[in-house]
Parts: sequence; structure tokens; C-alpha cells
Amino acid sequence: MRQNIMRLATRGRGTQDITSLVERIVQESGLRTGLCHLFVRHTSCALMICENASPEVRADIEGWFGRTVPDGDPRYRHDLEGPDDMAAHLRTMLTEVSLTVPIVEGALGLGTWQGLYLYEHRTEPHTREIVVTLHGE
Amino acid sequence: MRQNIMRLATRGRGTQDITSLVERIVQESGLRTGLCHLFVRHTSCALMICENASPEVRADIEGWFGRTVPDGDPRYRHDLEGPDDMAAHLRTMLTEVSLTVPIVEGALGLGTWQGLYLYEHRTEPHTREIVVTLHGE
Amino acid sequence: MRQNIMRLATRGRGTQDITSLVERIVQESGLRTGLCHLFVRHTSCALMICENASPEVRADIEGWFGRTVPDGDPRYRHDLEGPDDMAAHLRTMLTEVSLTVPIVEGALGLGTWQGLYLYEHRTEPHTREIVVTLHGE
Repeated sequence: MRQNIMRLATRGRGTQDITSLVERIVQESGLRTGLCHLFVRHTSCALMICENASPEVRADIEGWFGRTVPDGDPRYRHDLEGPDDMAAHLRTMLTEVSLTVPIVEGALGLGTWQGLYLYEHRTEPHTREIVVTLHGE
Repeated sequence: MRQNIMRLATRGRGTQDITSLVERIVQESGLRTGLCHLFVRHTSCALMICENASPEVRADIEGWFGRTVPDGDPRYRHDLEGPDDMAAHLRTMLTEVSLTVPIVEGALGLGTWQGLYLYEHRTEPHTREIVVTLHGE
Repeated sequence: MRQNIMRLATRGRGTQDITSLVERIVQESGLRTGLCHLFVRHTSCALMICENASPEVRADIEGWFGRTVPDGDPRYRHDLEGPDDMAAHLRTMLTEVSLTVPIVEGALGLGTWQGLYLYEHRTEPHTREIVVTLHGE
């Protein structure tokens, strides 16, 4: 059981590819077959596995969130930290705080078109923590 | 590998903080570094990690579900157990039946503002089972 | 740590019950207490735990997706592979690529009404890979 805590600075709302950062942790572990668990310690950013070839996919996801979970909806009661506060909690609920990826033949077992993203749901930049726990053999 | 089955009585639709119940199981395990997996054995209630400071956040989530996945939508075909039956299945799909939280330094590795909730999606009270599986060292 | 790769042919958009296929892998492992992790290596199909008694539930889920994440929305920029391309990525985000089910007393620890489904989100048939990783004792 190996555990690392990654700290990442985000640039505000949007996705950040963390595949190679996590791949490096898997490589350093020396595990051949196992599981890599990721956990975001926040309620306004999340993890997402998404198509990694066309940036338009992530732009369209952002567009869908903007329509379905809008910032500043007057029906929100919680707006302590601004119009994006409640929207960020809802977006987090709809994406993932916890994600497990298999380790296959010594590497992250992602499919060809799968990228691993940290999705900042707040409009302002934040520092985010991800707990990475690996086990296997 | 330690496995417990928790049985919880819900009070009908809404969230119930289960953080301290799960924390107690982690403490009793004596594990220092590991993973705590939770699994709800139902298709109309779910697990959710959510902001734990302001109850308004959970009220706003409930409001969003009420608008996006309404009870009694006439387009639902499945309404055997009443107007909340199909809405509860859809809400479950959008939240989580399976959740893994890291065990860090002998405790649940949640962030400061993260609470662990059982979200009853049916309007009536139910008894719910959660399988808790822990492993580590 | 046991790892299998399942390859499944889908018939286009819709769900396919994979409970018994996964149950067989659990049986063959001989594990009594543990965890069974499933991971889909794609960004346009997903895993879902859903009510297994009434097919109307899955039909209503399909209906809800059709309204909430429509094919061919003119606001999508990504439509390289047709009108269902971007909708499939959004549906995948809202369902699961990674799912962990406990192994309880030598079997998948699902609740009575829980079935395990592969949800093809593209309209055309595809061949899909699921990595199944089991561990326990």
C-alpha cells in the first residue's frame, strides 16, 4: 500500500490533464498488476476520465454544465463565495471525487482515448490536493 | 480485508451524515494506510461526498434534483411504487452506489469540508444496507 | 490480485446485463471476502448499477438522457463521428467508467434488485473492453 499526496495549482474553471503525473507515480511504485485510487479532498473540483484527443470534447462538457448547472441561478440559497459557489458543488456531485484505475502490465490501464483530468469547478485558481493510493504486486 | 454491514434507518428523502459512523469503523480496524470502500445495496438511495458546513448546499442539491429529475414526470413509464419511484432511480444513477475513501494516518482521509452522506432518494423512510470493506496496513 | 480483460460486443445504444459474467469471474477466483473492480476502457460507454426487475426503468433512464443530453445538439462543437458522438461522451461522464463491488461470502455482494450493466452510449454496435481486477482472501 503506497500513498502519495499530490498538490496541484489550478488556473480556475477548466480541466487539467494529470495522466502523466499519475503514470509517473505508478512507474515509481514498480507494481505490475494492481489498482491506483485517486481521491480529491475538495467539494468544488473533481476527477474526470475523458476523451483526450479533441479539446472540443471538454469545451462541450463545459458548455453543457453551463446550461444544466448555471452559475448564479437565483434559486440557489448558498452563494457565500459568489455565483460559482453552488454550481461548483453541483458539478462536483455530477463528476467524481473518487476514481480507481487498474494497473495493467506495470502501467495505468487506461484505454487509448482516455485521459485523466482534474476538473476545477470554481472560476478562480485554487491549490488542490489529490490522495493517490496504490496497491498490488 | 475487514468487512462490516451497516444498517441505517432513513427518514425519507434527504441526506444523513454518516461520516462519524464510518470513521468509527476505520478507527476500530487499526489500519494506518489503506482504503475504505462503501457500497449501497439499493437502486433508490446513494452515497454522496458533499460540503459539510452549510446545510444550504444540500438543500440546493435537493432543489436542483427536483427541477432536473422531477417526481411524477408523465414521460416515465415506471411508476409502480409511486411518483418518486423512477425519480429515485435516476437520482441514484447521478450520485454514487460505490465510493472509496483513502485511510490516511489512521483516519478517513477526507478534506476539511468533506462530509460523507447517505442520500435517501425515496420520499418514504427505508432501512438501508451499506457494505463497508477496509484493507491496508 | 487477479486481473481479467472482458471483451463484449454491444448492439448499439442501450444496456446489457453483465452481472452473471462478472459473477462467474468472482466464483472462479475462489475469493470469499474482497473487492471486484470494473473499469471500462472507453469514453463513450459506461458501467451502471440499476434496478434489474423492470426493463421500464432502463427505458426511462434512456428517455431522460435523450431529453437532458440530446444527440445532435447544435451547440456541440465536437461531432466528428456523428450526432451521437458528443452525447455519448456526456452520458459517459454522468454514468461510471470505474465501479467497485464488494465480494461477500464468496459472491458479488449486490443487493437483491441491483443488476450490473454495460451501457453502450453510441448508436452503433462496438466491441468494448472491461478490465476486471479482484483482490481479497
